Amino acid sequence: MGGAVKVYGVVASPFVATVLLCLEETGVGYELVPVDMAAREHKTDPHLSRNPFGKIPALEDGELTLFESRAISRYVLRKYGSGTRPDLLRESSLEESAMVDVWTEVEAQQYLPAISNIVRQCVIMPLIGGVRDQAVVDENVGKLGKVLDVYEARLSSSPYLAGDFFSLADLAHFAFTYCLVAGTEYAPLLEKRVSVRAWWGRIMARPAVRKVAALIDLGLLKPLLSA
Amino acid sequence: MGGAVKVYGVVASPFVATVLLCLEETGVGYELVPVDMAAREHKTDPHLSRNPFGKIPALEDGELTLFESRAISRYVLRKYGSGTRPDLLRESSLEESAMVDVWTEVEAQQYLPAISNIVRQCVIMPLIGGVRDQAVVDENVGKLGKVLDVYEARLSSSPYLAGDFFSLADLAHFAFTYCLVAGTEYAPLLEKRVSVRAWWGRIMARPAVRKVAALIDLGLLKPLLSA
Repeated sequence: MGGAVKVYGVVASPFVATVLLCLEETGVGYELVPVDMAAREHKTDPHLSRNPFGKIPALEDGELTLFESRAISRYVLRKYGSGTRPDLLRESSLEESAMVDVWTEVEAQQYLPAISNIVRQCVIMPLIGGVRDQAVVDENVGKLGKVLDVYEARLSSSPYLAGDFFSLADLAHFAFTYCLVAGTEYAPLLEKRVSVRAWWGRIMARPAVRKVAALIDLGLLKPLLSA
Repeated sequence: MGGAVKVYGVVASPFVATVLLCLEETGVGYELVPVDMAAREHKTDPHLSRNPFGKIPALEDGELTLFESRAISRYVLRKYGSGTRPDLLRESSLEESAMVDVWTEVEAQQYLPAISNIVRQCVIMPLIGGVRDQAVVDENVGKLGKVLDVYEARLSSSPYLAGDFFSLADLAHFAFTYCLVAGTEYAPLLEKRVSVRAWWGRIMARPAVRKVAALIDLGLLKPLLSA
């Protein structure tokens, strides 16, 4: 019963891309099932039976259906991320798992509100026929810079956010940051901070990351860059 | 060296109250160390060494310092919530812990943005000498109602959000919901939905919840109600 893990969504959503990256890191097979956002398929059944809030991604694994990308990420890493794969949750250590949780929450509460506004204005708006609001961009570039100042201090004393190991805390930053770096003129926000730049380089060197980056190029940035 | 767990913050912050509730549920001893927000103590050292983003709460447990209330909550429940205490994370079951994570994320992503705006306008603004913006309140009452419609459907088939057990997913809703119910005229948002009302009754019946509710009365609602 069940078969392969199914992810419902489109890779143009950074939240979907985050889930795909978790799956790629574990090496488990999965199927990406497209959801036609333009036709509002996510706001009708059967998608509403997968996520009653009508958002993507949703995940099916046998009889289990999950939504909310961070909850899905934890589940995927917990179920499939053991054995020979890198342990991205560190739940066997109270202290290490706590630091993973702290910096995963920092991504959600401090980093994401700023970077998502920039990516929405600079990358998504042109794709849907809108025009970017530069005042919104400027305000959030300021906010993101302040957050990155804290990251620079943190990453000057440890190679990854939670410590000396790559974890969900770093992984959770990938999708929006890749859109910012590859799809906007704001890559210098990261590049001019030496420890942040080195951290980003370590993330981009991972095979799973390069694979999902290629999917984002194809699904989101190529239509934009060739427009 | 170590000693009791220390929580830095004020109970007037629902994020601090959430951490206190986790500690009360586990029964572990703790000390609440006040932070003088009016004097901007949270934006200066030594608090910035506890949380580089200058927010509350922060937690010290021996040599470990943590911030971000959800990360602290997980740590407290994981470290002190075992044995004879109720297991509020359910990490021994892949499926149950995934459902706890899903509905804990729903609180963060769907519920909190709406309810926090209402509580900020109706409870916090009068305390700091401001005037509530009723348009903001009305917009968020509409949003919260739609979220609670999904909750009503969910809670009509299970007594708690993640299933038939009280968990972090329910606990995470307590502090802001209590401020809404006890400190604003919008309690009917919950009361008119029968399954939501029954769920809220089950939460409020817990001894740990009643203890923290009394602290919120004292620290946040009493100055308001007696003003």
